[in-house]
Amino acid sequence: MLKSIALPIALLSVFATANADEGQWQPHQLPQLKAELKRIGITIPAEKLADLSKHPMSAIVSTGGCSASFVSGDGLVVTNHHCGYDAIQRNSTPANNLIAKGFLATTRAAELPGGPNLRVYVTDKLENVTDRVLKGLTPGMSGRARYEEVASRVKALIAECETDKAYRCSVPSFHRGLEYYRIRQMMIRDVRLVYAPSDMIGEFGGDVDNFEWPRQTGDFSFLRAYVGKDGRPADPSPDNVPFKSKDFLVVSAEGLKAGDPILLAGYPGRTSRYKLPTEIRFVRDVSFPVRVADMQADLEVIAASSKGGSEVRYASVVKSINNVLKKTQGLLDGFKRKDIAAIKDAQDAEFRTWIGKQGATGGVSGTMLAELDALIASDITLQNEEFGAAVASKSDLLKSAATLYRLALEKQKPDAKRESGYQERDLSFIKARLARLEQSYDARVDEARFGASLARYAKLPSNMHPQGVDSLLPAPGAVAALYKQSELGDTAKRLAWMNKDADAFVKSDDAFIKLAVKLHEANMALEDRRKEIDGNMERVVPQYMLALIAYKKTQGKPVYPDANSTLRVTFGTVSPYSPRDGLVKGPFSTLEGIAEKHTNVHPFIAPQPLLDAVKQKRYGVFKDAALGTVPVNFLSSADTTGGNSGSAVMNKRGELVGLNFDSTYESITKDWYFDSGITRAIHVDIRYMLWVMKEIDHADNLLKEMTIKYPKK
Amino acid sequence: MLKSIALPIALLSVFATANADEGQWQPHQLPQLKAELKRIGITIPAEKLADLSKHPMSAIVSTGGCSASFVSGDGLVVTNHHCGYDAIQRNSTPANNLIAKGFLATTRAAELPGGPNLRVYVTDKLENVTDRVLKGLTPGMSGRARYEEVASRVKALIAECETDKAYRCSVPSFHRGLEYYRIRQMMIRDVRLVYAPSDMIGEFGGDVDNFEWPRQTGDFSFLRAYVGKDGRPADPSPDNVPFKSKDFLVVSAEGLKAGDPILLAGYPGRTSRYKLPTEIRFVRDVSFPVRVADMQADLEVIAASSKGGSEVRYASVVKSINNVLKKTQGLLDGFKRKDIAAIKDAQDAEFRTWIGKQGATGGVSGTMLAELDALIASDITLQNEEFGAAVASKSDLLKSAATLYRLALEKQKPDAKRESGYQERDLSFIKARLARLEQSYDARVDEARFGASLARYAKLPSNMHPQGVDSLLPAPGAVAALYKQSELGDTAKRLAWMNKDADAFVKSDDAFIKLAVKLHEANMALEDRRKEIDGNMERVVPQYMLALIAYKKTQGKPVYPDANSTLRVTFGTVSPYSPRDGLVKGPFSTLEGIAEKHTNVHPFIAPQPLLDAVKQKRYGVFKDAALGTVPVNFLSSADTTGGNSGSAVMNKRGELVGLNFDSTYESITKDWYFDSGITRAIHVDIRYMLWVMKEIDHADNLLKEMTIKYPKK
Repeated sequence: MLKSIALPIALLSVFATANADEGQWQPHQLPQLKAELKRIGITIPAEKLADLSKHPMSAIVSTGGCSASFVSGDGLVVTNHHCGYDAIQRNSTPANNLIAKGFLATTRAAELPGGPNLRVYVTDKLENVTDRVLKGLTPGMSGRARYEEVASRVKALIAECETDKAYRCSVPSFHRGLEYYRIRQMMIRDVRLVYAPSDMIGEFGGDVDNFEWPRQTGDFSFLRAYVGKDGRPADPSPDNVPFKSKDFLVVSAEGLKAGDPILLAGYPGRTSRYKLPTEIRFVRDVSFPVRVADMQADLEVIAASSKGGSEVRYASVVKSINNVLKKTQGLLDGFKRKDIAAIKDAQDAEFRTWIGKQGATGGVSGTMLAELDALIASDITLQNEEFGAAVASKSDLLKSAATLYRLALEKQKPDAKRESGYQERDLSFIKARLARLEQSYDARVDEARFGASLARYAKLPSNMHPQGVDSLLPAPGAVAALYKQSELGDTAKRLAWMNKDADAFVKSDDAFIKLAVKLHEANMALEDRRKEIDGNMERVVPQYMLALIAYKKTQGKPVYPDANSTLRVTFGTVSPYSPRDGLVKGPFSTLEGIAEKHTNVHPFIAPQPLLDAVKQKRYGVFKDAALGTVPVNFLSSADTTGGNSGSAVMNKRGELVGLNFDSTYESITKDWYFDSGITRAIHVDIRYMLWVMKEIDHADNLLKEMTIKYPKK
Repeated sequence: MLKSIALPIALLSVFATANADEGQWQPHQLPQLKAELKRIGITIPAEKLADLSKHPMSAIVSTGGCSASFVSGDGLVVTNHHCGYDAIQRNSTPANNLIAKGFLATTRAAELPGGPNLRVYVTDKLENVTDRVLKGLTPGMSGRARYEEVASRVKALIAECETDKAYRCSVPSFHRGLEYYRIRQMMIRDVRLVYAPSDMIGEFGGDVDNFEWPRQTGDFSFLRAYVGKDGRPADPSPDNVPFKSKDFLVVSAEGLKAGDPILLAGYPGRTSRYKLPTEIRFVRDVSFPVRVADMQADLEVIAASSKGGSEVRYASVVKSINNVLKKTQGLLDGFKRKDIAAIKDAQDAEFRTWIGKQGATGGVSGTMLAELDALIASDITLQNEEFGAAVASKSDLLKSAATLYRLALEKQKPDAKRESGYQERDLSFIKARLARLEQSYDARVDEARFGASLARYAKLPSNMHPQGVDSLLPAPGAVAALYKQSELGDTAKRLAWMNKDADAFVKSDDAFIKLAVKLHEANMALEDRRKEIDGNMERVVPQYMLALIAYKKTQGKPVYPDANSTLRVTFGTVSPYSPRDGLVKGPFSTLEGIAEKHTNVHPFIAPQPLLDAVKQKRYGVFKDAALGTVPVNFLSSADTTGGNSGSAVMNKRGELVGLNFDSTYESITKDWYFDSGITRAIHVDIRYMLWVMKEIDHADNLLKEMTIKYPKK
């Protein structure tokens, strides 16, 4: 029997609605977007989405670096496979490799500890504290004084909020200082691994398919949040009980079809949408190209020096560098494809003309643009030196030593006065980080990387050499000796330094401690300059944003702040895209695509039971009528970035229909400029997740625990 | 302004209609397909399409190797750019490079001679002569005797038809000997070049894009057929007048959209759709892999030896080898993608079971299948030796000498008894071929190719060495001497041999004449064995086809014969395809795709005026409403193969809407097995042709001459 494709009428109709699906909105902004939400077909009221204490937003949580959501009243959390990866890895042994086998706890008792790095943060309270942060600051303050004052007030606001140790608080700035919100999150620290499919499903396609479409990755896993019997966060303990998540997402197995609206809620990390053309030209022409070259060189050194044993230790380091490399290269490719600087030039010129006509009103100084341009110039100068400093210190031992010495110095101050990141509240994180190094460190590799990066540093142009640093650095050839004269590679000895005072560092004979002490002043000088610039930026950029918001208001458009790891909502439609003329990608991939890609060579090895099920067309109720099979991944036009991994993808009624886990290569430029024609986020379809749970892994207990709406027959 | 793609709802719906668009139909078969034609939306009556003397079929012509059609009453012919290429090339000089500049005759007087190889064949008469070819042949005849008898009767039928020198006749067999038709074609031998766009349009994408999609090639050119004042074909002369083509295609500038039906008429060359599984396994596992390796090796030798001057001479040789190589590689890739042998196994088993139940009836011998299987085994044995012989004679001088010697021998016989290809009617073609060698020959390159191919021959497995040949061949190292001792490289001297008798060859001191004479017997032995097998095949395969036709009739399906360079009609719909999960190609490419691919590096250099017009969106009336721009190429599901180049693509009313010029890489397997899910032909959209003529080349005279239906405003 032959198969035929019936008329995918791929009509590429070009229309002029600018910024169609752009926007990582603060939930409270959504009521301003009612018309747009209605236009694409969202039926859940905007007011409901704006209320963090109500379903569905109250079900959206964070794991620190990823987004996730509750899917049962017993604290069951769904997120990406790659977000739960550490928890799977730490429970794996060579003899019982859960990464390869997958893991399913069929009883609560069988659920495995997620480890100290795995947490669930439930946003609980959000207050606008702008006044308390900015009150009384004067334009005449130096950048650094302003920076320190803001930092100090923010620390006080956090301390005041964290009197209850069950909570973690933060005071992120929006629009780079225009507004400050204090966010209180319940930090659940007993999080257990409930279910993860085999990495043959969860990582199918691996790094090869990272940022790529077509895609067939089952990037999902399930965790459970546990709390003390009193319902409050507690240290991991067998006595803990599942967290009662009163709000959780209902799962819709009905799925979506092309053109359907979606909502996506999560914690996007960082975007740079409001950068000026000069800043784009700097990253495009200077900063990103040198970074790409440096990462490529570093990867080569790691590959060569880790050969024969340490590859596994460096696998996650390599993965992480590769991810940043591909993203940076993707940005450069995007800049090549489209002259974003020129587009920004035009927008900037238009905006400046508009500002020129307004005069200095409404908190915007008449010299704002001139000040901003000068600040950007200083920032670029400093960024070059900061990059040089980073290249010159590409040694895990040196970085550990620097952290430890800084900690000893900060500890001399009262807690409230310490640099953010070195306060009492940060100690457990510092310790975890220093301990974790054990898993990804090999002296031979670190030595090779440090030697090679010092050699690269020597060849960088002079404007990338921070003042006074060159003479303090060892010669690349002298690096080997340092490793012989340091004990920081030993985890116990490294951790012991957390309790030593600054004097012990100064007197130490340890080669890396000595180097860190020697370099400290130069690094502080860079940090002081950074604070001066950032402090000034925080004074000037808010004025720029204020003017921009006023300008956009004249066009009837709300303005969303750049991503800052806070809870955001974005919306869009399930839609394919054309990466080039004559070619359409997506919006769906299918089970058959897994069999098609399966080569039996990593990362394209699918489990045999899955291949059998596909061959036998055992689609069950998860078959999509139009596709004639089970969808695996799909594309939407939603506006996402790093941190949105694991974000709930919801249908118009706010029911869970998928998880966000990646975006296409052509979309990478979106962190700097959102091009709605080509920007697409990649989601794993809920029907594939449920199909895997049902047909492959028999996770019937979880299917029963969740509230699932199955399609009507 | 941002652009967005509105919902290309690419629903890949799988349905079970087998062989949906398969079939290169003889026009007289079309009335059997009425229901199918109606289903896809063709409104022109099937009976009208069946009548070769009536519009539109009477407007469909051949240029020998390509298909073409009349588009005015004054003999204006449209075909592919690559079909008119020789005519453009022979009128080009370094100082006046028409290939690069393009050419437009704005008056009839300015039209340029197409040269002796360019002809227009107008099919005039078609008679079923099966009885006259097969009458009285007995099953007891040897294969060779049968072959010779059939060849002799065919020659007589041709001679009888060609008494009028204005016509060229042929008696091709259908279903490999089941039926014979005598086809009479008026052979117009004064054909002139009217218009060809620059190769920057006509060959945009060049070899890189050959067999590829996305595609943006303006593969079209215009010729004009001239005849004597009496309306009959005549040698080229300034006194000739345009041929009065009473029937010609009306052009529809309304174009097509995805899902629209199309008709395609032309002269497909050769397919192998009815091969048995053994034959597929032979080409897949043996024949094609050695051919691919041989072509790759030959290309390397040409590249190395033609460096520094002769590259241009060998450009078309290389292009042609590359084309065959890509096609053969495409077949191998297709065989890898889909186990066609296994599919054929199943079909074959089913068919054999059915035959088994029928018994020996209706002209099908009870031993037919056993005979066929044995014949295929002999054929495979012989094919291996024929391949060896071809590798051992990869010298243009040797091939010329062999042709000349054979001609001298054949001339000893009365014309009717001569081998087909060496009769009086063939002499002008032989002469043209021998003369044309001048343009693509260089002794240094020929010597290198011959030496290398002899060395490769020596390494072939022994079953690829024809008996008695090895000892007659020169050692690879002795090849250089042959070239010093031959004058065949001189065109005048080479052509002079056409008039010498066999004795002169035997006595000649020319090294290549001597080698050809020496190898003649061995070649004849291969030829005799070929005739024995082919004669037997012509006896047995028709029985197989007869049974297959009866079998298919039980399923209500007509059977079309394999392509044999005769006029065929195929139909289908404008449709995209999915080369792999999550990806959709086509069905349209657009002007913007040209700008997108333009790198200013050959073959991706678009003319500046075209780029300007695209940038300024000067689409004129040729803008497609759904695409928002001018379509350039499009895909259809029609069933085509080599020889269909230049075929008219017509809408449901039989109006010209495009020209066929290629097919996608995934489609290459179609010569052996038609997979309707992925097989797509590539056409140039008439709207692009007209747009180029209007906006870029200002061919207003031709736009006026043609009858063009413009879209309603």
